Amino acid sequence: MLPVLVVHGGAGHIPKERVEMSCAGVRAATRAGYAVLQGGWSMDAVVEAVTHLENIPSFNAGCGSVLNVKGEVEMDAIVMDGRTLASGAVSAVRNIANPIQLARLVMEKTSHLCLTAEGASQFARAMGVPEVPGESLVTDYARMRWEKNLAPDANPVECQMGKMGTVGAVAVDADGNIACATSTGGMLNKMEGRVGDTACIGCGGYADNRVGAVSPTGHGEAIMKVTLARLILFHMEQGLSSHEGSDLGLATMKERVGGLGGVVTVDPQGRWAARFTSAQMAWAAAQGDTLHYGLYPGEDITQSIGDPN
Amino acid sequence: MLPVLVVHGGAGHIPKERVEMSCAGVRAATRAGYAVLQGGWSMDAVVEAVTHLENIPSFNAGCGSVLNVKGEVEMDAIVMDGRTLASGAVSAVRNIANPIQLARLVMEKTSHLCLTAEGASQFARAMGVPEVPGESLVTDYARMRWEKNLAPDANPVECQMGKMGTVGAVAVDADGNIACATSTGGMLNKMEGRVGDTACIGCGGYADNRVGAVSPTGHGEAIMKVTLARLILFHMEQGLSSHEGSDLGLATMKERVGGLGGVVTVDPQGRWAARFTSAQMAWAAAQGDTLHYGLYPGEDITQSIGDPN
Repeated sequence: MLPVLVVHGGAGHIPKERVEMSCAGVRAATRAGYAVLQGGWSMDAVVEAVTHLENIPSFNAGCGSVLNVKGEVEMDAIVMDGRTLASGAVSAVRNIANPIQLARLVMEKTSHLCLTAEGASQFARAMGVPEVPGESLVTDYARMRWEKNLAPDANPVECQMGKMGTVGAVAVDADGNIACATSTGGMLNKMEGRVGDTACIGCGGYADNRVGAVSPTGHGEAIMKVTLARLILFHMEQGLSSHEGSDLGLATMKERVGGLGGVVTVDPQGRWAARFTSAQMAWAAAQGDTLHYGLYPGEDITQSIGDPN
Repeated sequence: MLPVLVVHGGAGHIPKERVEMSCAGVRAATRAGYAVLQGGWSMDAVVEAVTHLENIPSFNAGCGSVLNVKGEVEMDAIVMDGRTLASGAVSAVRNIANPIQLARLVMEKTSHLCLTAEGASQFARAMGVPEVPGESLVTDYARMRWEKNLAPDANPVECQMGKMGTVGAVAVDADGNIACATSTGGMLNKMEGRVGDTACIGCGGYADNRVGAVSPTGHGEAIMKVTLARLILFHMEQGLSSHEGSDLGLATMKERVGGLGGVVTVDPQGRWAARFTSAQMAWAAAQGDTLHYGLYPGEDITQSIGDPN
């Protein structure tokens, strides 16, 4: 089994002028996480990759998150440890640069699995996580989209799908330990306090050493209705490959609730998949000496891990 | 297929002096919901039953909820409609008498599936749901337990399991439509903002007309780690009965994460189960002219639906 890390930067339709930025971002995050995976733990690798993406303003997570209807950033994030099924999540959290690291602290430092809103902020303070001004997470691009979606004829769900989503990662390390991490600003112009799939175990992420791991992206409410991450892993438990299980889960979501999205998936043997029903999904995978990446359906470009970018 | 409603009032160890109250409560809630199920929709029936239990101070939902570490009531609730996989949930909501009805409003009046904390309160106000003083939800019993658990040698997880839990219901109506509803004050002395299984689709409830419905109770964090409701329904999709699927799901939860709990489960043919690995679970089921109920393992007492209590 070869250790592997697979990363996504969101499913949807990525505007032409943002394509190169998105692809470069997921490649860089994958390289950063994969460096940690060399002799390291899958949990450290997925948190590293997702932290990297949270810090890039062109992704909808951390700085660069979409804005809620009030023009504010509220974020969801989750991690899961496939060894023990331990998990940590935060929902509707504000003023934090890296929600994925706070989710990990919920897993490691509390007896709970999810903390929300002001309770999550209090926990962050108790853990010494620095509070950042809400404005520092807001990009001009996010504010422009927010204003556009306040127009009376706007369709926020369509616009949400049309741009870029959630970020996430799954990994298997040399010890066979599996982990996932997902982080998001959620849905553009969402109601205050809206919790999407990302904070919800089995929906926005799931990891089990016995089966594999999934990190989804797409229309959060659709992902929740079919508990997409857990659904795909059930298919894999029934004998489907990571590729087949991902496709069947995504097809079920389209058929049952009309939802589009994408996933990155691994199994315990390090076999991985990056699959989507949306127009595009920025993704990258690192295994052995090779970095794979793609954006359009069927695309799988390879380069050496050692390449500069 | 005979329409059926199955209700639980929480898994755990119920103190002797509260046994009769618990059993009478679930029987009354089942009768109230079953009256609605006569010619009515399963969703109306489960919400009626759960509302009834939220209004009884001896259950851990609505008035009578356990208190968080600050001595306050924060509640989670979820409903799901098996026809469309639509769902609504609220997490960490305060000052609401009937969170289950607010969860239903999230499903019916928003494009989201879950609203949390202050955002949920704002939505309640916008919907004209009356705000109630926090103190009106706090019973002397809840305050006594909270104080006891602040003692340095207390073990809140153990104490939580030792008393009473979440309430919930599942139903199939004459049209074959399936629904579930679950409501809870959560875990005794939980951190502020802790979200448990109940607000999380696939964990604290799931309903699908093609497979069945499950409403769980027990240690929330354990239920989340195995996505208990969805897990049991996956087993039923593989051919297990509601009884066998429930037992296998609960056994998996015990084996993988050491968690105890219970569930009420129905399948599309109206075959039902009330199963638990905890010492006790107060439950009742109504089908045809018969009301079944029980508290201890293996117990199934029957009486006529028409009996006065």
